[in-house]
Amino acid sequence: MAKGVTPKSEDYSKWYTDVITKAELADYGPVKGTMVIRPYGYGIWESIRDAFDKRFKDTGHVNAYFPLFIPKSFLSKEAEHIEGFAKECAVVTHTRLKSTEDGKGIEVDPASKLEEEIIVRPTSETVIWSMYKKWINSYRDLPILINQWANVVRWEMRTRLFLRTSEFLWQEGHTAHATEAEAREETDRMLEVYREVLEDVLAVPVLTGKKSESEKFAGAIDTLCIEAMMGDKKALQAGTSHYLGQNFAKAFEVKFQNEENKEDYVYATSWGVSTRLVGALIMVHGDDKGLRLPPKVAPIQVVVIPIVRKDDDSSELMDYLHPLISKLKDSGVRVHVDDRPKMSPGFKFNEWEMKGVPIRLEVGARDMENGEVFTARRDTGEKFGLTLDAASVKIPELLDEIQNSLFNQALEFRAENTHTASTWDEFKSIVEKGGFIKCGWDGTAETENKIKAETKATIRCIPFDEDPSGINCIFSGNAAKHQVVFSKAY
Amino acid sequence: MAKGVTPKSEDYSKWYTDVITKAELADYGPVKGTMVIRPYGYGIWESIRDAFDKRFKDTGHVNAYFPLFIPKSFLSKEAEHIEGFAKECAVVTHTRLKSTEDGKGIEVDPASKLEEEIIVRPTSETVIWSMYKKWINSYRDLPILINQWANVVRWEMRTRLFLRTSEFLWQEGHTAHATEAEAREETDRMLEVYREVLEDVLAVPVLTGKKSESEKFAGAIDTLCIEAMMGDKKALQAGTSHYLGQNFAKAFEVKFQNEENKEDYVYATSWGVSTRLVGALIMVHGDDKGLRLPPKVAPIQVVVIPIVRKDDDSSELMDYLHPLISKLKDSGVRVHVDDRPKMSPGFKFNEWEMKGVPIRLEVGARDMENGEVFTARRDTGEKFGLTLDAASVKIPELLDEIQNSLFNQALEFRAENTHTASTWDEFKSIVEKGGFIKCGWDGTAETENKIKAETKATIRCIPFDEDPSGINCIFSGNAAKHQVVFSKAY
Repeated sequence: MAKGVTPKSEDYSKWYTDVITKAELADYGPVKGTMVIRPYGYGIWESIRDAFDKRFKDTGHVNAYFPLFIPKSFLSKEAEHIEGFAKECAVVTHTRLKSTEDGKGIEVDPASKLEEEIIVRPTSETVIWSMYKKWINSYRDLPILINQWANVVRWEMRTRLFLRTSEFLWQEGHTAHATEAEAREETDRMLEVYREVLEDVLAVPVLTGKKSESEKFAGAIDTLCIEAMMGDKKALQAGTSHYLGQNFAKAFEVKFQNEENKEDYVYATSWGVSTRLVGALIMVHGDDKGLRLPPKVAPIQVVVIPIVRKDDDSSELMDYLHPLISKLKDSGVRVHVDDRPKMSPGFKFNEWEMKGVPIRLEVGARDMENGEVFTARRDTGEKFGLTLDAASVKIPELLDEIQNSLFNQALEFRAENTHTASTWDEFKSIVEKGGFIKCGWDGTAETENKIKAETKATIRCIPFDEDPSGINCIFSGNAAKHQVVFSKAY
Repeated sequence: MAKGVTPKSEDYSKWYTDVITKAELADYGPVKGTMVIRPYGYGIWESIRDAFDKRFKDTGHVNAYFPLFIPKSFLSKEAEHIEGFAKECAVVTHTRLKSTEDGKGIEVDPASKLEEEIIVRPTSETVIWSMYKKWINSYRDLPILINQWANVVRWEMRTRLFLRTSEFLWQEGHTAHATEAEAREETDRMLEVYREVLEDVLAVPVLTGKKSESEKFAGAIDTLCIEAMMGDKKALQAGTSHYLGQNFAKAFEVKFQNEENKEDYVYATSWGVSTRLVGALIMVHGDDKGLRLPPKVAPIQVVVIPIVRKDDDSSELMDYLHPLISKLKDSGVRVHVDDRPKMSPGFKFNEWEMKGVPIRLEVGARDMENGEVFTARRDTGEKFGLTLDAASVKIPELLDEIQNSLFNQALEFRAENTHTASTWDEFKSIVEKGGFIKCGWDGTAETENKIKAETKATIRCIPFDEDPSGINCIFSGNAAKHQVVFSKAY
C-alpha cells in the first residue's frame, strides 16, 4: 500500500491494474481469464446492482433465474446469434471424474460423455425464449418483463479485470410484448434507466445513441447504447438495450393470440449492464492516489480516524466522536471507524485514499479540545476543520457536493476531449491525441471498416441528437447519412 | 389454475409438483435436471436471501465473488473432498463451436480442446483457499469472513424442483481464523443464524445438532446442521455449518505468522443454505389449496380484490380503498391490487390462495356502504369484516399472528410425529408410519449403515441437547454413545 500506484500519465494500463490490486478490488482466479471480485470491489458492485434493481422494479420488472446450461442445438437456432457467440464459449462434455490408474490423480471419466454437449450461457436469449414458448399463449400473458442477475461466460483470450474476463456478473432483461411499438418503447425506457443510473449514481456522463449495423448485438434489429469516456480518452460501452423484433420468437416458435384473435409472433427486447461498470468507475474518477468513489456507490462514505500515538488508547477520542457517528448513521451515511492499533495515521490515510472513500475525518487531542473534527475531501484534496455540531449537518451536504463535483469533472473532461472533425487529416490527428470525434458518415459498412482498419477507431454510436444535414462523410466525402461519434474503445 | 392440486393425502410428491406448477414457482429447464425459477418463486428466494444477507452483515461478514471455474487438479488436493464431488460434476473440455461440414448445424471444434479440463464449481472451498493463500500472511490478515451468493452445479440423475437439481442457487460462507476456538465459535454462530432465519422468518421449526461421520461434509472435521420435518414427515437438511479444521489450509498450503511469531496453518469454516429452502416452505406450510406463505417471506402479503361484475368499472371501489392501501404501504406492508378486468372474483381467489398470499381483502359495493373490508386469512381460512379504520391497524397485527400461527402449526405437527423408540420393532414400525425417531445409537458406522440398508432411515443429527445416559443402541443393544434422531429424508 505504502508505495502507491504507477502514475496515470506514465502507463495508464499499469495504473489501472495497480489501483485494482492496491484498493483490493479484484484479483485473477486460477483458471485463465477468470476474476475474483474481492469484498471491497463486490461492495461497490452491490451498490451499483441495488441502484439498478430498484429502478427495474419501479418500472414494473420482476427478477427470475434461468439455467446456466444451454443445449448446444439452441445456439444454432438464431443464425446471427450463433455467429456472435460460437467462437468464445465454454463447452461441457462430461459429467464425472475418476481416479487415474496409478491412483495418484484424477481424470475425466470417458463413460460420462454427454449425448448432446452443453454450452455455459454467454447470454440467455435462447434458454429464456425456449421457456417463453411454454408460458405465452395469448395477449393476456403479455408483456413479460423479466430481469435476471447472473454470471455469464465468454471465452476471452485477452482479458483485463472488470473490462473483459471469461466470466463476469451482469443483469440481463428479457421482455416479451404484443406489439413492435411496445417493445421499442421498452428498449428506450431501459436505456433511459441506464443513463440515469450512470449519470446520477455512478457520476459517469454518457452519450446515448444507436449502434451501427456492424456494432450491434448478434440477433438484434437495433442496439441502443450508452457510451462513456474513460480517463485515457478511450470509449467504454457501458450498457446496451436491444430491440430484437421477432427474431427470437421466430427461432423458438413463440406465437400468441392477439386481441383480434389472430396469431402473431411475440416482439422482444433484451438489455444488460455488467461488472465492467466497476472498471468504468475506476477509469473515469481515479487519480494518481487511487480510486475516487462517488458517494452514492461508495461502500464507505466517511472514514473516521482517531489520531493517537502508536500504542495509545483511542477510547477517549471515540467517546468524543460517538454522538457525531450516531447522527451520521441515523441520516443514512455509511461510516467506518478505523481504530486499528499499531498502524500509523499516515498509513491509514494512504489506504483510504487508495480506496477512494469520499470523506476522511481525523480527530486528535487538539481537535477534541477545540470541539472540532478535521475533514479531508477525497475528490479535491481540500482539508478544513468543522465544529462537531456543524459536522452532522455539513457532511451529508458535502457528500452531495462531492457526487456532483465528480460528475462535473468527468463532464468537463469529456467536453475538452470531444472534437468535431471535418477533414480526414483532422480525424487522424484527433485519433492520435485521443478523444471522441464527431463527424459525418456515409452509412456504409465499407467506410466504417476502412476507418477502423486504418485508425482502430470505431463508431461508438449514432447519437439520438445527431444532425447530419449538410455535412459530408469524413472518409468517402459523400453526403453524410449520419453524424456519428468515433473513438478507440475498450 | 381452476383445477387445483392433487390432494396431499393422495400423492404427496404429485401434490408438491402441482403446487410448484400452479403457483408458478419454477419449471424444468431444457437441459436435464436444470431449473427455471419463475418470478414468483424468485421473489420468495429474494426475501429469504435478504433475511440471511442482513444477518451475515450484522455478524461482520462481507460478500465477494469467486470464479465458477475450477482447475481439475484443485479437486484432488483434499482427498475426502474429491471423493464427495467427483462423481457428479460438469466438466468443461472445449472453448469453441464451429459449423458442421454441411453447414446445417454446429459442433464442438476439436482444436479448442483445453490442456487442463475445468470443473464447474460444485462448492468453492478449493478455489477460495487457493486465493486465501495469496491474501493471508499474518494474524493481522485474520479473520477473513467472506460469504458468496452464487450458482453451483452437482450433476444429479434423480432431480426434483428446488430440492435436488443439477444447478442451484445458494450462499456459501468461507471463513479463515487464527485459532481452532475462533473457527469453532464461527461454526456455531452461523448455525444459530440459520436457526433464527428458519424459525423466525420462514416459520420452519428446526432441530439443531451435529452430523454423524458418514453424513458430514466431504472435507470437514465436524458438520453442524439444521433439520426440518416436511409435511410427509420426512426430514429435510435445511442448512449446514462446517468446522473444517486445517484440512483446506494444508491442502492449499495456507500458513500464517501467529502472534507469537510462529508459523501455523489457518483454521477454516464453511456454511451454506440454498434454494432448497423454497422447497421446505412449500412442504412445511402448503395445503390442498396450494402454498401458504409466512408473511415475512411473502412477496405479496395482502392482496386486494375489488368485487365487480365482469365488465364493470372498479374505480369507485378503488377510490374507497385508496387511503387504506396507502396506510398499509406506509407501514411497510407489501400490498398488491388485483383489478384485472374480465376475470371473476372466484378465479382470483383461487389463484391467490394457490400462491399462498397470507391475507386477502375483498371489497364489494355492500362493504363500501358499510365502511368495511372483508378479510380472509390464508392460514386458517377464517373470514370476517373489518371497518376501514380498524383495518390499517389490524392487518399488520394479523400478519404477525399468521407468522406465529404457521410456526406453531409446524411445531405441533413435528411434536405429533416425533417418537422415542426403545426397541428395534418399535423403530421399524415408526419408520413405516413416518416421523422422527429419537433413540440410542452405539456410535458405529456399521450400525448406522445396517439401519439405513434395512429401513432407509438415516441419522439426521445428534441433537445438541442429546442425553445418551442409561440408554442402549436401538440396533446393537450396546450402550448408546449418542441419542440421535433418525428419519427418512429428502
